[in-house]
Amino acid sequence: MVNMQKTIITLMSDFGLRDPYVAEMKAVLLGICPEATIVDISHEIEKFNIRMGAYVLACAAPYFPKGTIHVAIVDPSVGTKRKPILIRAKGACFVGPDNGVLTLAAKKSGVRCIYEIASQKITPPRISQTFHGRDVFAPVAARLANGTQPKELGSRISKMAMPDFGRIARKKNMTVGEVSYIDDFGNIVTNFERRELEGMVTARMIDIRVADSKLKLKLCKTYADVEEYWPLALVGSHGFLEISVNQGNAAEQLKAKEGDKAILYRS
Amino acid sequence: MVNMQKTIITLMSDFGLRDPYVAEMKAVLLGICPEATIVDISHEIEKFNIRMGAYVLACAAPYFPKGTIHVAIVDPSVGTKRKPILIRAKGACFVGPDNGVLTLAAKKSGVRCIYEIASQKITPPRISQTFHGRDVFAPVAARLANGTQPKELGSRISKMAMPDFGRIARKKNMTVGEVSYIDDFGNIVTNFERRELEGMVTARMIDIRVADSKLKLKLCKTYADVEEYWPLALVGSHGFLEISVNQGNAAEQLKAKEGDKAILYRS
Amino acid sequence: MVNMQKTIITLMSDFGLRDPYVAEMKAVLLGICPEATIVDISHEIEKFNIRMGAYVLACAAPYFPKGTIHVAIVDPSVGTKRKPILIRAKGACFVGPDNGVLTLAAKKSGVRCIYEIASQKITPPRISQTFHGRDVFAPVAARLANGTQPKELGSRISKMAMPDFGRIARKKNMTVGEVSYIDDFGNIVTNFERRELEGMVTARMIDIRVADSKLKLKLCKTYADVEEYWPLALVGSHGFLEISVNQGNAAEQLKAKEGDKAILYRS
Repeated sequence: MVNMQKTIITLMSDFGLRDPYVAEMKAVLLGICPEATIVDISHEIEKFNIRMGAYVLACAAPYFPKGTIHVAIVDPSVGTKRKPILIRAKGACFVGPDNGVLTLAAKKSGVRCIYEIASQKITPPRISQTFHGRDVFAPVAARLANGTQPKELGSRISKMAMPDFGRIARKKNMTVGEVSYIDDFGNIVTNFERRELEGMVTARMIDIRVADSKLKLKLCKTYADVEEYWPLALVGSHGFLEISVNQGNAAEQLKAKEGDKAILYRS
Repeated sequence: MVNMQKTIITLMSDFGLRDPYVAEMKAVLLGICPEATIVDISHEIEKFNIRMGAYVLACAAPYFPKGTIHVAIVDPSVGTKRKPILIRAKGACFVGPDNGVLTLAAKKSGVRCIYEIASQKITPPRISQTFHGRDVFAPVAARLANGTQPKELGSRISKMAMPDFGRIARKKNMTVGEVSYIDDFGNIVTNFERRELEGMVTARMIDIRVADSKLKLKLCKTYADVEEYWPLALVGSHGFLEISVNQGNAAEQLKAKEGDKAILYRS
Repeated sequence: MVNMQKTIITLMSDFGLRDPYVAEMKAVLLGICPEATIVDISHEIEKFNIRMGAYVLACAAPYFPKGTIHVAIVDPSVGTKRKPILIRAKGACFVGPDNGVLTLAAKKSGVRCIYEIASQKITPPRISQTFHGRDVFAPVAARLANGTQPKELGSRISKMAMPDFGRIARKKNMTVGEVSYIDDFGNIVTNFERRELEGMVTARMIDIRVADSKLKLKLCKTYADVEEYWPLALVGSHGFLEISVNQGNAAEQLKAKEGDKAILYRS
């Protein structure tokens, strides 16, 4: 029976768009599963920045239809003992290295089972030591799209790597989190969700420290709620507290970068 | 009856390709209309540069097949009173904010009706104030692709925002226009069409001022009609007068930028 | 009879992703062959750098399924007497300018016949002198995808341009090649294939000169075989000797660039 359903396979990596690497992955995917719809999430993840990859994947993955297969590769330890894994989650599968890049997105989706990919079962027969995206992860994703069961591609394992970023500490007068992401507009995205704001907002103002700046900012609904080039805070479209500058670049102005500590003060 | 025709939906924005935003729009599009063929026009429009977005869309849109739906988002005023609109034109639909970014392309195509999108009719039920690309414009485009009539998505309005760029003033001895676009090769694209050149060319030479430089240039058919690194003028592949340097970067050499005045002198 | 097979058409160019040019090519392709699956190989080839385009295409093309049509445009002499060509190779067709950009990939695939494209037979009726990607190469590729025979699109010629790069000279105590490519990770890819290493490796070390540096490097299997930020050599995923720095940028450290001489010394 031919599976006519067009499965979506997404790709995320730190490969950039100049080199032939992303195209080679797509070539392998389409060779095994010609009906796949391939969507790029991003290939501009900073090289080797697992935190950034994990954040971007966790943002985008929930918007994809049920059954989507996500391949994510930020893989500084390619070819070493780090495991290639496949996570079957509630509405999606995640394929990539076991270094935390898949973890946030998979947990958000609801992890069902984790498999260590048995590379020897994968076509192509010759696997490079340096490009598992093309030689391991793409073939696995394409075979999943063709209907192969995860258990035919590897063996179940009990846990995956847990990243040590993205933690929140609630203290008496403050909540300590971090900068998860700086987007291309310079918006500073923290890991504070809306619930962390309870008791922290007075007269629509919040007190926050990020990088070396302590700020008192208006909690807005959208960027244009303040004058052009003024700073503001808002809960962004992914549910996290952001610090922004209307039509400006907040990260440049505050010299903030991913991983910086962020502190919300009780007012 | 299932609509098996594959509608093309194009996307243009100033989001860049690093962040998850473009992928989230595609996820929403494919969730509503799995058969859509999605084509990126550009996501590297300069942030908030409506003129540049309007130009790029107006260049690309005419080449797409009849029935294509164009989504264009350069939207510094997202979440304010600026209207979300949908334009039914002769061979295409245009979806985006009512700030001029759609206007040039829609006029070129031939405007039939303009609708203000009724956001409350749109899935998803929760609309962010900061990402209408994902939460308003993508769902509208996907529903159009599924065959929903524009009138079910909003109510007719009589006019759209008209940009104040792209004007031409014909004076006695000169014609005054502007630099519409600097392309990635550094070609300086003006808003002079071929008809503006009548009476302005003598012995295949033109007199033109752009930025701070007054130039006498050979009107060529292609870049290699002059020696390497020599400047030239030509009517480019979109029908506009360009100033170029063969295998060089004209905009860098002349320090020209979008919006600069351009003057053609009668010889 | 309708051809329901979805042909893959790949695109490679030096156009960048900001301008409307790539989208216009896709618009033309989909207008003629709506069923085509379009895959971008890269549009970030350095402007006018035929060597880099030839290398990237030759890397990616072999991974695509049989029957793929590759369009590659790095074309500093567009609109001059350089021929537009179409190469029918063993498992693929190649379409682009006759300046060497197609040659490496076509030879690797196995050249069958070469055709000079007869532009007057091509829609659209009006062909710009400056954008053959949209006006000549895309229509030719789309018609091939629709089943048109190469001989209906041009006339056979006996040879194509041979690039003068990529040569190897074997001398008594050394083998002289060059840097083919610097990838986005800063890996320095030479044109030495595995067979050039015979007799050149002693105790898993090689002696190599690249740019101005003479190095004694461990021949590794993957990047993480040395400490972080240490240099290494390995035969990369395309079969060529690479010089890399584990999680660092080898090209920046060694100031190497494409075209630099590379010398392997017999130890």
